[in-house]
Amino acid sequence: MATIDINCDMGEAFGNYPMPNDEILFDYISSASIACGFHAGDPQVMQNTVNMAIRKGVSIGAHPGLQDLQGFGRREIKISAKEAYQLTLYQIGALYAFVKAAQGKLNHVKPHGALYNMAAKDENLAKAIVSAIHDFDPSLILFALAGSEMITAAQKIGLITASEVFADRTYQDDGSLTPRSQSNALITDEKESLRQVLRMVNHQQVETVNKKIISIKADTLCIHGDGLHAVEFAKTIKETLIREGISIKSPTRS
Amino acid sequence: MATIDINCDMGEAFGNYPMPNDEILFDYISSASIACGFHAGDPQVMQNTVNMAIRKGVSIGAHPGLQDLQGFGRREIKISAKEAYQLTLYQIGALYAFVKAAQGKLNHVKPHGALYNMAAKDENLAKAIVSAIHDFDPSLILFALAGSEMITAAQKIGLITASEVFADRTYQDDGSLTPRSQSNALITDEKESLRQVLRMVNHQQVETVNKKIISIKADTLCIHGDGLHAVEFAKTIKETLIREGISIKSPTRS
Amino acid sequence: MATIDINCDMGEAFGNYPMPNDEILFDYISSASIACGFHAGDPQVMQNTVNMAIRKGVSIGAHPGLQDLQGFGRREIKISAKEAYQLTLYQIGALYAFVKAAQGKLNHVKPHGALYNMAAKDENLAKAIVSAIHDFDPSLILFALAGSEMITAAQKIGLITASEVFADRTYQDDGSLTPRSQSNALITDEKESLRQVLRMVNHQQVETVNKKIISIKADTLCIHGDGLHAVEFAKTIKETLIREGISIKSPTRS
Amino acid sequence: MATIDINCDMGEAFGNYPMPNDEILFDYISSASIACGFHAGDPQVMQNTVNMAIRKGVSIGAHPGLQDLQGFGRREIKISAKEAYQLTLYQIGALYAFVKAAQGKLNHVKPHGALYNMAAKDENLAKAIVSAIHDFDPSLILFALAGSEMITAAQKIGLITASEVFADRTYQDDGSLTPRSQSNALITDEKESLRQVLRMVNHQQVETVNKKIISIKADTLCIHGDGLHAVEFAKTIKETLIREGISIKSPTRS
Repeated sequence: MATIDINCDMGEAFGNYPMPNDEILFDYISSASIACGFHAGDPQVMQNTVNMAIRKGVSIGAHPGLQDLQGFGRREIKISAKEAYQLTLYQIGALYAFVKAAQGKLNHVKPHGALYNMAAKDENLAKAIVSAIHDFDPSLILFALAGSEMITAAQKIGLITASEVFADRTYQDDGSLTPRSQSNALITDEKESLRQVLRMVNHQQVETVNKKIISIKADTLCIHGDGLHAVEFAKTIKETLIREGISIKSPTRS
Repeated sequence: MATIDINCDMGEAFGNYPMPNDEILFDYISSASIACGFHAGDPQVMQNTVNMAIRKGVSIGAHPGLQDLQGFGRREIKISAKEAYQLTLYQIGALYAFVKAAQGKLNHVKPHGALYNMAAKDENLAKAIVSAIHDFDPSLILFALAGSEMITAAQKIGLITASEVFADRTYQDDGSLTPRSQSNALITDEKESLRQVLRMVNHQQVETVNKKIISIKADTLCIHGDGLHAVEFAKTIKETLIREGISIKSPTRS
Repeated sequence: MATIDINCDMGEAFGNYPMPNDEILFDYISSASIACGFHAGDPQVMQNTVNMAIRKGVSIGAHPGLQDLQGFGRREIKISAKEAYQLTLYQIGALYAFVKAAQGKLNHVKPHGALYNMAAKDENLAKAIVSAIHDFDPSLILFALAGSEMITAAQKIGLITASEVFADRTYQDDGSLTPRSQSNALITDEKESLRQVLRMVNHQQVETVNKKIISIKADTLCIHGDGLHAVEFAKTIKETLIREGISIKSPTRS
Repeated sequence: MATIDINCDMGEAFGNYPMPNDEILFDYISSASIACGFHAGDPQVMQNTVNMAIRKGVSIGAHPGLQDLQGFGRREIKISAKEAYQLTLYQIGALYAFVKAAQGKLNHVKPHGALYNMAAKDENLAKAIVSAIHDFDPSLILFALAGSEMITAAQKIGLITASEVFADRTYQDDGSLTPRSQSNALITDEKESLRQVLRMVNHQQVETVNKKIISIKADTLCIHGDGLHAVEFAKTIKETLIREGISIKSPTRS
C-alpha cells in the first residue's frame, strides 16, 4: 500500500494577526511545519500551535525562515552559509523548547520560503542548513524539495530526508518547479491537481509542462493553508487519498 | 572554604555593534549569562559567545530579556504571565541549540534587565518564568536577585537557585537594591565595593545604606561587562577573592 | 446643525497580513488615523492607505504607536517623555512623506493604543507628544480622549484639538472610560450605542454607568475597524447620523 | 578654485550601542548622511545627530537603507522597485521630521550599503529611489556613486546630483569600484589615498588598478567614520585639502 505524508506550514500568525484556518487544517494533515518567529510566528503562536499539533496527533517540524517579517520570508536575502547555519539552529532550538515543554517530539525541519528555494539550488547554503539540523539532533528528518541540493546534502551528512512534492505547482522537464513568475506555474484546476497528486504518490512520477512523464520522489505532499479554498482543498485531498487506499502518515525518525 | 560564583552578562553585542570586552572578561568569571536575541545578541553573536565560553571552561546560562532591542531590555513592558512564560521558553530554546550543537551544557537561566526586576517583585511573573525553565529542564539553575519572588517561586517548583548579589550596588534595610534613580545606588569606590563583596561571600551579610548589617544569601556575584573599568575591576575582584582563599566556582546542576 | 467627525484607525495591516475591512470602511468615515509602522503598518501599507484616503476624500492623520508590533502597540512600555517625543516625531514624518508624495494634506495626529492611554493620564508624556506635533507643524490637529491630559497639553501649546468619544465604550462619572478589565466596559447593544452617540453629538452629554448625565466634548467619534460587525456598524452609524440631520465632517486645520 | 564636499555616514548608533566617533567627525565634514532607523539609527540617535549637525553647521542628508539592522543594511535583499520607492520615502520623511522640528534644512539623500550598491547597477531600483526623492521634494540633492545608474536616473527626473568618490577604494578601468571581495579593493596607504583624492578633486581623474588614467566626476568625497584611524584620517584629509587651496563645501539645493 502506498504511503504519503501531508504537510502544511502552520503557526504563521503573528501578534494581533490571525491565521484562522490553522485549527481546522490540523484535521487534514500528518505533519505541521511550524514557523519559528523569524518570517512569521511569535512565542505565543508557537506555543498554541505546538499544543494544537500534539492534541491532534500531528507530527511537528520546525519551519525556520529568513528574518524578514515584512516580506514573510519570501524575499531573498544574501546571507552567508554561516548565517544560514546560525539562523536555522536558533529557530530549531526556539521551537524545540515549546515541543519539549509540552512533552512532544520534534520530528522534522523544513526551511521556509526564500531560504527553502535558495538552499534548493545553492550547495553551500544546503550544507550549512543540514549541518545545523544534524548538530542539533542527527535523528531529525529534513523536509526539502525533491531532487534539490538540500536532499543531496542531507543524505551526505546522514540525515533522513522526506522529498517534498506539491499538489498545485507544475514541474519542468528537469524536475524543478515552474517559477511563479511564469503564467503556468500554478495548477488551478482541482481535478488536475488531484491527478498529479495520485500519480506522484502511486507511481512516483509527474507529468511536466511539456507533457513528459518524469520520475519524482514523493515522500511528503505540501498543501497550502492560506487562500480561500485551502481548507476545502485539504479536505478533498485527504479524502481522495484515503478513498484510493493510500495511507497518510508522517515519516518516522530513526 | 567559602565558595562563590562570578557571573557576567555576555553576548550582548548585536550585528555590527561589538561588545569588545567579552573575550577578556571570560578569564575572570565562572558563569556567563548569554543574551538570546530579544534585548541583545543575535544568532552569530550567540554561537561565538557559546563557543568562547566552552573554550574558556565557563558555565553557560541563557539570559532571556524583553523584546526591546532599542531599549536593551531595560524598559518595563507590561506583559502577562503567559507572555513571560513564552518569551522565556523561546529564548532558552534558542540558546540551548547553540550549546547543544557545540556539545556543551546549559547550566543556568538568568532573566535580564526589566524582566529580572519586574519578576523580582511580581509573584505571577516569577511563577511563569520559573515554570518555563522547569518545563524545559527541571535540572537547570535559576540565577535571580537574593531574597526575590523569583527565588521563592523557583524553590517552590523545585528548581535549584543561585541567589545573586552585586558588587557595585547598595542595599536597603529590607535587602532590596537601592533604586538606580537614587544618588547612592552605586558604589563607585573600588575598595568599598571589594569590602562589600568579601562580607557577602565570607559572612553572607551586607551593610545597608543605613549602616545596618543584614544577612543576604550570596551564591553568585554579578559583575558588569560594560563601562570603562569593567575589565580591570573584574580582574581585581577575581584576584582579591583568590587571595582571600575563596573558591570561584559555578553552581552545579542536579 | 450639529457636526461630528467619524474617525477610524486604518492601515493597520502588516506585510503579508491584511486588514480586509479597510477599503470599505473609507466609505463611512471622515478621518483616517493611519498606522506608521511601529505598532502596525509598513511602508507599502502606508502608501496604499494614504492613496486610498485621498481617492475617497477622507482626511488623513498620523497614528503613531509604541514600537511593539507583536503587542500591536497595546502593551504599556515605560518610556521617557523624550522617547515619546522622538517616536511621535519619527512616525509623523514617515507618514507625512507618503501624504506629501501623493500631494495630499496631513490633517491630524492621533496616538495609538497604550501610548494614547498612557498620555491621557500622564502630563509629561502628553506634553512631549504635543510638542512633537507642534514642532513638526503647529497647524496640525490633535485627536485625543475628551477630557484627557493630552487635550489640556495641546491647548496650552496652541494646537487645535478634537476631543474623541467612543460609540461602544461606557463612561465613568468623572468622564473617563470604564477600563476594559471591567465587565461593563463595552456597549454591545447596537441601539444603546446609537443612543449614546446621538446624545454625545446633539447634546455634548453622556450617561455614565451610574446613570448620571455628564457633559462631554464630542468633536470626533471613534469607530473600530476590526471585529465581525465593524463594517455593518460603521454603515449604521453613518446612516443614523445623516438621518438625524447631523453633518459628518473632519475638523479643519488653521 | 576647486571645491569638494566631504560626506560621512553619521547617526549609525542604535539604542545602547554607541558610535563614539560621530561628534568629533562633524569637525571634518561638510555633509552628514544620517541613518534613518532601518539599517541603523533610532529616533533618539536621529534627533541627537540632526541637532549636532545643525550646531556644527554641517549639511544634512537622509541615509535610507534596507530594513536589516542585524546586517547593518549591507546584505542584499531582493526587493521590488515599488518596495525601494516606499522604504526610501518612509525614511526620508522620518529624518525630515527631526530636521524640521529643529528648524534645519534637509539638503540631500544618499542611499546606504546594499541599497546604494544595488541601485548603482539596477536601473529600475535607481528610478524608484530617485522618484521617491523627487516626489518628496524635487529640490533635494541625490548623492550617489559617480557614473552609476542612480546618477543617470536622477538627472533624467531633474534632480540635482552629487557624484560620490572614495578616498580609500580603488577603481576599475570602467570607473566602477573594485569589489571588496578582491584583495586590492582598498587603499591602505594614507599617502596614496591622499594622492587619489587630490587627483580626483583637482583634475576629475583617477588612476585605475591597471594604471590607466580615466576621468571621474567628483562632487563629494566619502570618508568612513568607523575603524581605528577614521578620525585621524578625516582630519588629515581636511587639512590636506585646505593646504592645497581646495574649498570644502556642501552642494547647494536649487
